[in-house]
Amino acid sequence: MRYELYYWPSIQGRGELVRLALEEAGADYVDIARRPGKGLGVPAMNRFLGGGKITSPPFAPPFLKAGRLVIGQTANILAYLGPRHGLTPKNEAGRLWVNQVQLTISDFVAEIHDTHHPIVNSLYYHQQKPEAKRRSKHFTAERMPKFLGYFEKALAGQGKKHPFIAGKLSYADLSLFQVIAGLRYAFPRTLAKQSKDYPLLMDLHDRIAVRPNIAAYLASKRRIAFNQYGIFRQYPELDR
Amino acid sequence: MRYELYYWPSIQGRGELVRLALEEAGADYVDIARRPGKGLGVPAMNRFLGGGKITSPPFAPPFLKAGRLVIGQTANILAYLGPRHGLTPKNEAGRLWVNQVQLTISDFVAEIHDTHHPIVNSLYYHQQKPEAKRRSKHFTAERMPKFLGYFEKALAGQGKKHPFIAGKLSYADLSLFQVIAGLRYAFPRTLAKQSKDYPLLMDLHDRIAVRPNIAAYLASKRRIAFNQYGIFRQYPELDR
Repeated sequence: MRYELYYWPSIQGRGELVRLALEEAGADYVDIARRPGKGLGVPAMNRFLGGGKITSPPFAPPFLKAGRLVIGQTANILAYLGPRHGLTPKNEAGRLWVNQVQLTISDFVAEIHDTHHPIVNSLYYHQQKPEAKRRSKHFTAERMPKFLGYFEKALAGQGKKHPFIAGKLSYADLSLFQVIAGLRYAFPRTLAKQSKDYPLLMDLHDRIAVRPNIAAYLASKRRIAFNQYGIFRQYPELDR
Repeated sequence: MRYELYYWPSIQGRGELVRLALEEAGADYVDIARRPGKGLGVPAMNRFLGGGKITSPPFAPPFLKAGRLVIGQTANILAYLGPRHGLTPKNEAGRLWVNQVQLTISDFVAEIHDTHHPIVNSLYYHQQKPEAKRRSKHFTAERMPKFLGYFEKALAGQGKKHPFIAGKLSYADLSLFQVIAGLRYAFPRTLAKQSKDYPLLMDLHDRIAVRPNIAAYLASKRRIAFNQYGIFRQYPELDR
């Protein structure tokens, strides 16, 4: 089956967590909004967001079309893809755990986004800069260590022979890779200071980056570069 | 099986979304942190949050102990309970849709929380009041109608014969009840002004409230009253 991924064409954003899973799996997919042509591009995405006759409308991108299914919400898409591509454990306890970690990553990603948009997404960063500086100060001092410390501990809990969040590679490991890569872009000073406390997480990032399918993806044009429009943005004044 | 629910004992919070599902299902459960006694109360909850030897540690309450499973993250707990208690469709498409709605409710709940805590949870409201006022202005004008409009449309999409978010009652309907009840407490003026735009959602709230198990629960001491410590707080200055 050829999947259709619908996400903004110029940012990594939450869509990247889905792209990484599809790429690791070597799945056949079309990144619809990035393709020019009839029935493609952003207008094709907006058709679903308008709603129309669909009984399971997405609230926002990303969403995935898989045959007749239209699946929204990043963690929901990954929970669908996981068992189909060997990216989550086969037993229920393992699947629940991977989903639990993914939802915690979702919470973390939302907090990362709100460092530069603490008031509302519809205003520019420069229109909420004082609030962004205040939120980021607490984010880097309290929230970032809390989340990273949790993931580090969860990794440690799997034991030395099982260097992934659920023992074997899962989509949550790919998302953790993306979070570390993003923090390295957005908060390089803070991460450099804190990273010694998270050796397993840093090692996980490095091991994911060199997996053949991921390395090929990262080197390809399919990987959009980090930029100032996504979740992870480089504002040095927020990174103290 | 007797479930063990772990959540803060003095607020509804995210735990309430789990409580409502357990109550509607008539499930056997113990609300551990609200019970006095040895091995109960908040210390029993903190034992899990400390981590210890558990391989699937929760990041935060709520979490549910179901036999040997310890399940964290509200939407993950509900995805576990749903098929066991007839609170989600039997087919995969329906289960994915209910989970998708639930995750959108999670996003909405997080935004509602951040109206009074836009900077960080570790500071008091009065320490971030100017930012809270600014965030709430945009929340009531933009975000609240966006989310409520989405849920209304999703309800409409099910057709007149199927007055629930997935046709038949699901845990997501119970959570929508809670969101409307909470908004009525926290943003009474705003909701009064906007509610005419959401007749299906308001009707859903009213129909859930009178379901026998839910009505009995709401009238019982098990239902904690809304208060100024939870997600939904009554600050009139935020409700313009």
